[in-house]
Amino acid sequence: MNRNLSDCAAMACLPAAAVATVALPKSRGIDYAKQLFLGMKVAAELFDCAIVGGDTASWDAPLAMTVSILGRSGGIKPITRGGAKPGDQVYVTGPLGGSILGRHMTFTPRVREARQLAQTGIVTSMIDLSDGLSRDLRHICRESHVGAILRSSEIPIHPDADTLSRQTCRYPIEHALHDGEDYELLFTTSQEQPFGYWIGTITAGDGIVDEDGAVSMEPKGWEHKL
Amino acid sequence: MNRNLSDCAAMACLPAAAVATVALPKSRGIDYAKQLFLGMKVAAELFDCAIVGGDTASWDAPLAMTVSILGRSGGIKPITRGGAKPGDQVYVTGPLGGSILGRHMTFTPRVREARQLAQTGIVTSMIDLSDGLSRDLRHICRESHVGAILRSSEIPIHPDADTLSRQTCRYPIEHALHDGEDYELLFTTSQEQPFGYWIGTITAGDGIVDEDGAVSMEPKGWEHKL
Repeated sequence: MNRNLSDCAAMACLPAAAVATVALPKSRGIDYAKQLFLGMKVAAELFDCAIVGGDTASWDAPLAMTVSILGRSGGIKPITRGGAKPGDQVYVTGPLGGSILGRHMTFTPRVREARQLAQTGIVTSMIDLSDGLSRDLRHICRESHVGAILRSSEIPIHPDADTLSRQTCRYPIEHALHDGEDYELLFTTSQEQPFGYWIGTITAGDGIVDEDGAVSMEPKGWEHKL
Repeated sequence: MNRNLSDCAAMACLPAAAVATVALPKSRGIDYAKQLFLGMKVAAELFDCAIVGGDTASWDAPLAMTVSILGRSGGIKPITRGGAKPGDQVYVTGPLGGSILGRHMTFTPRVREARQLAQTGIVTSMIDLSDGLSRDLRHICRESHVGAILRSSEIPIHPDADTLSRQTCRYPIEHALHDGEDYELLFTTSQEQPFGYWIGTITAGDGIVDEDGAVSMEPKGWEHKL
């Protein structure tokens, strides 16, 4: 549910309604099903999103569940990945990395932040960080036909990335760049603004480079450069 | 997809949009996924229904797929199960039984028939036959707070019910009454009309009986009576 709400946030949309389907393992009882439903309901109601349909089934296989949310623009033009222009500034709404330690299950979708941002009228592109900063910035660059210069020293690193780095023996910045499932917003603006962290600038090229020269922005291969 | 379209038909609604999700077994390739999608697309397009979203995944478990359709009234007031009145006539749109021999996978959802029926203004309740005539008529009776007298000799029996009865050694009428997955429409009207088969009358009671006395309308237990 939260991942779908985050998809709404990525376009500055409001959730209109959700449909949810579960195929429950036959080994689990009705209490399990109720807990699942309650979890979805609480998450949805936080954003005034009604669960209006879907389906339920049980089967001799693992739990399968899916949610689809229908979004509505609610008076604000949806923001896509395709509007970034050279010279735009690149921002992220919060610290990144190590979300697998638990944040990926407990995050709050950035629906309200996205609406506030979009209302400023200066946001040119936006995406929610599900695949990791390095990959998701690439999505924006590809669909906007631009490149980017990142300032890796300005990327906000979550304490979880530090914790995880002690287990993985990788640098915290690597976790912030590549982990994914942060569900913060990555967005570009046509002028400076105070919201979130300024981490780079859009360029006319088609590559993503690190101004500080410390890391490669390639989704794969960065480990050879550090 | 067709089962969902049939749910639209049950209320005389038009499909507005579909969301579809599949979890593909990792053992199957992209051609399998494409075939699945094509099958859904062809079924949806027959009723001008766009597949607007959903999700795809792969996993080490059997195929799981689900479709949800958002309906729209399209100028016709949706028909529920709750409007049948004593004296109304009970109709079904086509012959029943034995659909498991293949019709349950190849049927055409009765969306157009439902719209035509609803436009007459005399349809008081409607449902699509997915659980079997005996169960689905019970749904109408329960939600309309009425009973029904069926004329079992007037129930149209599909040739598949005859074929199946030779394998099961049960009477064809039993298959027509209880098999399910016919996806014909069961509806009540406030006056006589020429569409479909007239199979009974709504009563003020709360039970369903057979005027011809040949069968019990109990969803379970009929086998003891024949």
